[in-house]
Amino acid sequence: MENLTEAQLYAQLQALTANISELDEESMTKVQARLDMLTKPQGSLGELEQIAKQLGGIQRTSKPQINKKAVLLMAGDHGIAAEGVSAFPQEVTPQMVYNIISGGAAINVLARQANAEVFCTDVGVAFPLEGNIIHKRVANGTQNMAKGPAMSRHEALQALLVGAEVAKEKILAGYNLFATGDLGIGNTTPSSAIVALFTNSPLEDVVGRGTGIDDAGLIKKRQAIQKAIDVNRPNADDALDVLSKVGGLEIAAIAGSILQAAASRVPIVIDGFISTAGALVASKIAPKCTAFMIPSHGSVEPGHRKALASLGLDPVINLNMRLGEGTGAVLTFHLVEAALHILNEMATFADAGVSEQSN
Amino acid sequence: MENLTEAQLYAQLQALTANISELDEESMTKVQARLDMLTKPQGSLGELEQIAKQLGGIQRTSKPQINKKAVLLMAGDHGIAAEGVSAFPQEVTPQMVYNIISGGAAINVLARQANAEVFCTDVGVAFPLEGNIIHKRVANGTQNMAKGPAMSRHEALQALLVGAEVAKEKILAGYNLFATGDLGIGNTTPSSAIVALFTNSPLEDVVGRGTGIDDAGLIKKRQAIQKAIDVNRPNADDALDVLSKVGGLEIAAIAGSILQAAASRVPIVIDGFISTAGALVASKIAPKCTAFMIPSHGSVEPGHRKALASLGLDPVINLNMRLGEGTGAVLTFHLVEAALHILNEMATFADAGVSEQSN
Repeated sequence: MENLTEAQLYAQLQALTANISELDEESMTKVQARLDMLTKPQGSLGELEQIAKQLGGIQRTSKPQINKKAVLLMAGDHGIAAEGVSAFPQEVTPQMVYNIISGGAAINVLARQANAEVFCTDVGVAFPLEGNIIHKRVANGTQNMAKGPAMSRHEALQALLVGAEVAKEKILAGYNLFATGDLGIGNTTPSSAIVALFTNSPLEDVVGRGTGIDDAGLIKKRQAIQKAIDVNRPNADDALDVLSKVGGLEIAAIAGSILQAAASRVPIVIDGFISTAGALVASKIAPKCTAFMIPSHGSVEPGHRKALASLGLDPVINLNMRLGEGTGAVLTFHLVEAALHILNEMATFADAGVSEQSN
Repeated sequence: MENLTEAQLYAQLQALTANISELDEESMTKVQARLDMLTKPQGSLGELEQIAKQLGGIQRTSKPQINKKAVLLMAGDHGIAAEGVSAFPQEVTPQMVYNIISGGAAINVLARQANAEVFCTDVGVAFPLEGNIIHKRVANGTQNMAKGPAMSRHEALQALLVGAEVAKEKILAGYNLFATGDLGIGNTTPSSAIVALFTNSPLEDVVGRGTGIDDAGLIKKRQAIQKAIDVNRPNADDALDVLSKVGGLEIAAIAGSILQAAASRVPIVIDGFISTAGALVASKIAPKCTAFMIPSHGSVEPGHRKALASLGLDPVINLNMRLGEGTGAVLTFHLVEAALHILNEMATFADAGVSEQSN
């Protein structure tokens, strides 16, 4: 992929997004009809019913099924870390990759509980990495965006297509429910920049404490983002411009995995703030992909709900989490599966001899 | 129990509530210390960490465990149904009990997914019932509270103690995580009355559409509740007065199950609007019991969040559900168990060789 020109990479991206179409209305109508026959007041299972319908519309069937589940965890480093925007040193990115390989991270624990697999991809960690991960490094981290573009447009396209490639591989292996996930010290900083630009929000509203910086750190972080925007002047109408100038390699890969999921008609649960920044990028590249997204939790990061709202998503879990890795998304798998259990296992009014609603 | 005098029943209730004490601070401190060693930013798992701590404080151990899980589903009928407050006929209560016995109701489906058992108790259904449920009927439904008290104080005490008795039985059988659950056509009506009285709210703020009444039905429902309050003049400072005059038999039993759970130091997840009305009753009888409650979902019923707030609870799931039966609570079991998996399975910074936070 690194041998392809920017134009060739862009053509690949266009071929991918051209495959994204609408949800299948007929299947959704059939799912709704079934839901309305079940022994409960109509609509009383709220978003669970909406998820069941959405899965029907995605899979183009009145009997959607989940077979294998995966967390597509994308890792990358950020040159902006040099500005002191994080409470953790950059070495923690590779250390956490090894923790994930050993199964000791939060995402491993929650994925085991959900009977899902974690696939960690090195899209752009700044340190040497070995071991059982997917090796697709585009660059050794991004550049410091306070001083110039985080990456070239060429690199941004490569990272997008890495995400798509990994998703494609897993879809071919039979996975049909995804969670997005991120890993990368400093990555709430580019995410805040992306969310500020795409939702046209003041930085005060979308810059938070990330892994836990103090007040002084928060000021530094805001200043670094302001500098990155001033120096790079990203064009909010050009998703690739925003992504390359103030984005991240793992954020690009998250966006790419979402685009591939949508093109292959696989539902993808969007994790927290970083993943939602990736989802915003994906939605700016191909707006139809939002129909394939399932919301998960509402993060403590102040920009998260703003970003979700601009995607038309409402969080279904509220645990005041701020960890990333896909932890909120993988917790949501239980609710997605609940929606299908309801659809497939509940008795109908006729089966159970229960009287129906009078109005 | 029906042979006991009111004074004897009241003495039993007092003996029960006398056993409710505080969470164990020492265990909670130990759980927090462990959580802070795990490979994640401190506090970044938000309410999952709070739940882990709460379970430690409840079980008085730094290593809390969940063994067997149960939904304590309480069923009862409501004389107020005669005022046309529900979209469903009252016959649906026994029909739904049979549906639950056959495993076809939403709560059965979601409990199976959660690996939990459903125990349905007839506390006061107005129709004959046979089959595999817990038979503890106190009365054949309540009286029409628009015309007089829903039940006697004696009956309210009996129903409270039925709930406690069922919970006790299941605790002795090894269950140590409960979900509350309700079944009873018309039961959002007494629940609204209870919430209005205990939170001192105007009826407009706490009366909703229940299973799905139309605008005319909503007006009728509000009027019926107003009439019940005017006729009975319940004393909001006397929980038993409120419960007996404008409550329900299954609501009383839910309150009783919560009190027993707290007395036996077993966490209990509070379902939607009706269960939260029961939780309010329990908290008015023995305020310390709130420490043993775990919130679940935020219901569509407008009074639900008000009731939760007055208990100091914040919903962790937002699915716009309004079904009851314990469905929101049993979905939350996954999150409760997630909290324990995190506590018990994640690697520490030392184990994983991950650098710690700098500020």
